[in-house]
Amino acid sequence: MIRVGIIGVGTVGTSVANILQENSDIISARAGVEIVPTIGVVKNLAKKRDVSIEITDDPSRVIDNPDIDIVVELMGGVEEPYALVKRALENGKSVVTANKALLAYHRYDLQKIAGDLPLFYEASVAGGIPIIGALRNGLSANHIESIIGILNGTCNYMLTKMIQEGVSYDAVLKEAQELGYAEADPTFDVGGFDAAHKLLILASIAYGIDAKPEDILIEGIEKISNSDVSFAKEFGYEIKLLGVARKSTKGVEIRVHPALVSKKHAIAKVDGVMNAISVVGDRVGETMFYGPGAGGDATASSVIADIIEIARGNRGPMLGYKKGLESGFELLESSEIVSKYYLKIKVLDQPGVLAAVTSTLADGGISISSVLQRDSKVENRVRLLLTTHFCKESQINAAIEQLKSLESVGEGNISMLRIVE
Amino acid sequence: MIRVGIIGVGTVGTSVANILQENSDIISARAGVEIVPTIGVVKNLAKKRDVSIEITDDPSRVIDNPDIDIVVELMGGVEEPYALVKRALENGKSVVTANKALLAYHRYDLQKIAGDLPLFYEASVAGGIPIIGALRNGLSANHIESIIGILNGTCNYMLTKMIQEGVSYDAVLKEAQELGYAEADPTFDVGGFDAAHKLLILASIAYGIDAKPEDILIEGIEKISNSDVSFAKEFGYEIKLLGVARKSTKGVEIRVHPALVSKKHAIAKVDGVMNAISVVGDRVGETMFYGPGAGGDATASSVIADIIEIARGNRGPMLGYKKGLESGFELLESSEIVSKYYLKIKVLDQPGVLAAVTSTLADGGISISSVLQRDSKVENRVRLLLTTHFCKESQINAAIEQLKSLESVGEGNISMLRIVE
Repeated sequence: MIRVGIIGVGTVGTSVANILQENSDIISARAGVEIVPTIGVVKNLAKKRDVSIEITDDPSRVIDNPDIDIVVELMGGVEEPYALVKRALENGKSVVTANKALLAYHRYDLQKIAGDLPLFYEASVAGGIPIIGALRNGLSANHIESIIGILNGTCNYMLTKMIQEGVSYDAVLKEAQELGYAEADPTFDVGGFDAAHKLLILASIAYGIDAKPEDILIEGIEKISNSDVSFAKEFGYEIKLLGVARKSTKGVEIRVHPALVSKKHAIAKVDGVMNAISVVGDRVGETMFYGPGAGGDATASSVIADIIEIARGNRGPMLGYKKGLESGFELLESSEIVSKYYLKIKVLDQPGVLAAVTSTLADGGISISSVLQRDSKVENRVRLLLTTHFCKESQINAAIEQLKSLESVGEGNISMLRIVE
Repeated sequence: MIRVGIIGVGTVGTSVANILQENSDIISARAGVEIVPTIGVVKNLAKKRDVSIEITDDPSRVIDNPDIDIVVELMGGVEEPYALVKRALENGKSVVTANKALLAYHRYDLQKIAGDLPLFYEASVAGGIPIIGALRNGLSANHIESIIGILNGTCNYMLTKMIQEGVSYDAVLKEAQELGYAEADPTFDVGGFDAAHKLLILASIAYGIDAKPEDILIEGIEKISNSDVSFAKEFGYEIKLLGVARKSTKGVEIRVHPALVSKKHAIAKVDGVMNAISVVGDRVGETMFYGPGAGGDATASSVIADIIEIARGNRGPMLGYKKGLESGFELLESSEIVSKYYLKIKVLDQPGVLAAVTSTLADGGISISSVLQRDSKVENRVRLLLTTHFCKESQINAAIEQLKSLESVGEGNISMLRIVE
């Protein structure tokens, strides 16, 4: 018998305890041993929990308990769970966590501390989709060319509503909050940070890169407007918040931002709160993984899969590498990222404006792919929509600064989105 | 160092040997040990192989060789590889196979023989898609509700061409043969047998069912016509060859047949030679896995993933169960399968025909969902297209026999397709 202690008995923790009991027939047959949820740790003992296991507010009852074999960490946060997981590992316990923030900051420390003990985290990325296993095991023969993922269900729900129903950003945010998809302070989701944490975990398995959220380009969806969505459509694109990790000749790009994605690509068709990840390997080609990225039962499905793996005696390696790569991959500076771009510029409706804008871009070495000018004036300005060929992030940013200095453009009249193909 | 012997150095075997060498940097870092392809076994020594390993025509040089740690079986067939894999396991070697036919017939024997030795087979189903790992490990907390898969790239390529370009079955078969997607004798692919072998493997992991191809419903795409494709479109469906394993209250349906799939479902959008598998778990909900189902490098990607797993020390369980299920699942008789159906009936253009047909169906307890009658006459007959509500396979088959006995219908004028939702 394997005894499981659960730190954090919220939505996911409740599902973990209940599924372990309700699906115990199939789980014990697959694991080869009975797996019993024993103790749950909560902050607030007064709050009613919908589980039939013992509840305590003392984490040491799990972490320092010789009867507990596997510690499941579902409390959230970074430093507090780090201390607890560290102690659990030092006590010789296996650990399963769904905590992407913890891993975004401490995955390499934890790998060292864990050593040969399993520290599994399938649930930390894309909820119920077994993407960690796919990348760590199933695609391990490949040099990974790229990972492109819809990793945040809240943002995808909001953008889908904006795309399909023309709802405004503010209205859809309010709706998402009412439905419980978005928090009262939605920054972590809509700012791209949640997706970034997940992407960093995937990038470690693919490329062995020890980067933290501060090291990478992260932009959220806060500035996406209905006009962006509808103009994107005219160019044949949908707007999605994407996590992108991609190998170039110079290093590995790791970035999270809203992006224009061709309507033809399967990932553009992923709607609502669902998640999907496209992984391109040098040998396998493109694979795609789709499913629910959040929710108590879906996330618990992955937590329990890890518990079963531990019960079966399978061991990582945690981040996919049993030893270091001889010539490791380097994180590319954000300024060195190469992309195609979409620019929306509100220009004064006067002669010579298009010439001024296009020659500014040409001076910056940026080649234009398509232009669309809109007649409908707002405050004496018309909209100029441009897409570019590939150029560097540093080039487009310098060009945007130059454009702002044009009298016909000025501050606050340019927005830029990246195109992902 | 781990030494690998490869039995069968065709397209996949060649890719396995070459990728192990060309991607050895990343493979050895992930595996923690160098993995070296050592000997390849072929039938015809005269044929030139594009590999830089020793080639022999004597399988015992691999199977009975104490220096070989892992035997990769890629020779195809059933009884001959069975004897060789058995001997390799008895010699204490780990085995990786991509041979779905071998597993369709002998997976339970082999599981017994293997015992605690790894016998892995990620490449046997859906080529480069890590679906075995997903089902065996990632979704192991779930009772699986259903598996619906596009498991044969040849058929999907052919149907896609018929759907998108209106090419006839015969023309597209010829084209598929010229492109190397279909064999000179295409029966194994177009008859549904290849997909059935793969589905049986997935059904074992999901339900622990020891069925053989003879035990399940298998229909191919040979009778699909352009008119089926275009009528399906009018009803809002695409035609796909599907493998379906689904739990009902009475047992588990395992079946392969062309099916009408709603255009809205993601699996209907999987085109060309690609494979995709939708897996619905009771806790996770719907997940989907997409990628290349064939090809030397893509299949080798999965073969090598298994080799890396073995090198890392990970062990099955081969078919996903460490011990038997207390209340196991039973295979449902084909006659008990419940589905919605589509009927295409060529009826004589005379009064009372529609009444005769519909009352025959009503007498059989079959409820009609929609009817479409086509005016265009061919040989004094018009086409009557019907979709039904759910009924049993035995009911629809009995009703079809009754319909054939109607003077206005007769033999050879009815075709039936199942609808999968």
